[in-house]
Amino acid sequence: MKCLMAEVNFSEGKNADLINQVKEAMLAGDPIDVMEISSDVNHNRTVFTFKGDPRAVLEATKRLSAKAVELIDMRTHKGAHPRIGAVDVVPFIPVREVTEEEALEICHEYGKYLGSIGVPVYYYEDAATREERKSLPNIRKGQYEGLEEKMKDPAWVPDEGPKEFNAKSGATVTGVRFPLIAFNVNLQTTDLEIGKKIVRAVRAATGGYQNVRAIALKLEDRGGIVEVSMNLTNYEKTPIHRVFETIKSEASQYGVGIVDCDLVGPVPVYALKDVLKFYLRTHSFSMDQLYM
Amino acid sequence: MKCLMAEVNFSEGKNADLINQVKEAMLAGDPIDVMEISSDVNHNRTVFTFKGDPRAVLEATKRLSAKAVELIDMRTHKGAHPRIGAVDVVPFIPVREVTEEEALEICHEYGKYLGSIGVPVYYYEDAATREERKSLPNIRKGQYEGLEEKMKDPAWVPDEGPKEFNAKSGATVTGVRFPLIAFNVNLQTTDLEIGKKIVRAVRAATGGYQNVRAIALKLEDRGGIVEVSMNLTNYEKTPIHRVFETIKSEASQYGVGIVDCDLVGPVPVYALKDVLKFYLRTHSFSMDQLYM
Repeated sequence: MKCLMAEVNFSEGKNADLINQVKEAMLAGDPIDVMEISSDVNHNRTVFTFKGDPRAVLEATKRLSAKAVELIDMRTHKGAHPRIGAVDVVPFIPVREVTEEEALEICHEYGKYLGSIGVPVYYYEDAATREERKSLPNIRKGQYEGLEEKMKDPAWVPDEGPKEFNAKSGATVTGVRFPLIAFNVNLQTTDLEIGKKIVRAVRAATGGYQNVRAIALKLEDRGGIVEVSMNLTNYEKTPIHRVFETIKSEASQYGVGIVDCDLVGPVPVYALKDVLKFYLRTHSFSMDQLYM
Repeated sequence: MKCLMAEVNFSEGKNADLINQVKEAMLAGDPIDVMEISSDVNHNRTVFTFKGDPRAVLEATKRLSAKAVELIDMRTHKGAHPRIGAVDVVPFIPVREVTEEEALEICHEYGKYLGSIGVPVYYYEDAATREERKSLPNIRKGQYEGLEEKMKDPAWVPDEGPKEFNAKSGATVTGVRFPLIAFNVNLQTTDLEIGKKIVRAVRAATGGYQNVRAIALKLEDRGGIVEVSMNLTNYEKTPIHRVFETIKSEASQYGVGIVDCDLVGPVPVYALKDVLKFYLRTHSFSMDQLYM
């Protein structure tokens, strides 16, 4: 069964009644699986994370966004977290059997809907329409307070919705990204230079794999061994085992082995499919066979 | 969160009204996750498979068993499948964070309950009280029709409930077993003798791993290559990767590689924990980090 995740970040973290009204709007349609609701008072910001059938997720996102846009007035918003709008950032994240194309379609439908209710929209990450809009910090630079000026720059004309600043709603950033996998490989060495050479071999920025961000650091609480700390941003195109085997192979030229690895935080079970295929050669295995 | 599965086999596969009453009894308490309901008219038998919180699963199993015992009269039961009772076989299967001891406790509580409502009970598999009661076919030999005589033999005194034959209910077999994993390894050879040598190396019956049953056979639809076809009966004690690596190593002495493998049918995601740990060295990974 197809499964898409949405992570809706909106600019209210204190007013419990308002947050509850937004939540009720989210839940008012076809069932979705709410994974996390987290409000931060200092950030004055709430994140709803939910998943399910892609259309149900789209509709829930629309309903809750309309309610947040109705109730939140950015002219009076204060909070420690960077933001440019009432509905600030909405990534759509394929979890299961959803292609990038399908997720983009959902994202575009959502962007057009927000535009239709008067909110300027920027697409980011895999939905970005220009290179400089891929990165969220780039789009959000200057924040809500600088948005009116920023929108006058032809480089920052919104992708959807009104071209004029909406003082009440601010703007919304939406896009598609894969679940990020935090994967650390701990090397049997205290020589940071070896770690840095391996980082250069595997990360996209220096000729390595696409979809890999990496740094090397020393784990002082483990006797100073070196860790290659990575974010894998697309486990389908650049799977875990391939990066691991490359690091193992690169490390071996220095006579360095791998102590152990960490997968940090939530991991979609689908990221394990290629790992299983590679190591157990189960090429016809379907993840639908798995149960928890 | 702890998760226990129950697979209740009862002796009615035709009477939709009766089956529905048993189903309603199952559902009348704390929620459980019903995975499959399958009735077979020729077998005249229904299987309810469900999982969830161990106590909720126990209570659902009790309720549905009481209803089945009330409604089914074995004196008039006919069906193609071997059976000795109205509630014929009930394995409890640990799925997640349930130890064998906890599952045995649930199983014993269920057995005592059935005994208290007048049904003779035999424990089998990991709950068996004697070696010859481990195997279901052993206990069920002679079937319902032979049970009255069999129970007069001191070797077949029930583990719980009345020592006398109950003509209406017959007897129930209940126990604990791990999820069975069907794992086939396909060898780069058409020489069945090599497959047989590997089978002898890995299966319990000939000195190999505990919890491994194996046979070798030729896959005629794949050019006659040899498959080592296995059932792994306890993936915690005898994990998939260890059996795979042993087969790889044993095959290498004949210069034979592994073409591919199949994991057939449902696989509990928890069976992958040791696979990940072994290949990716993720020793501190918790399966709770996974989401579907």
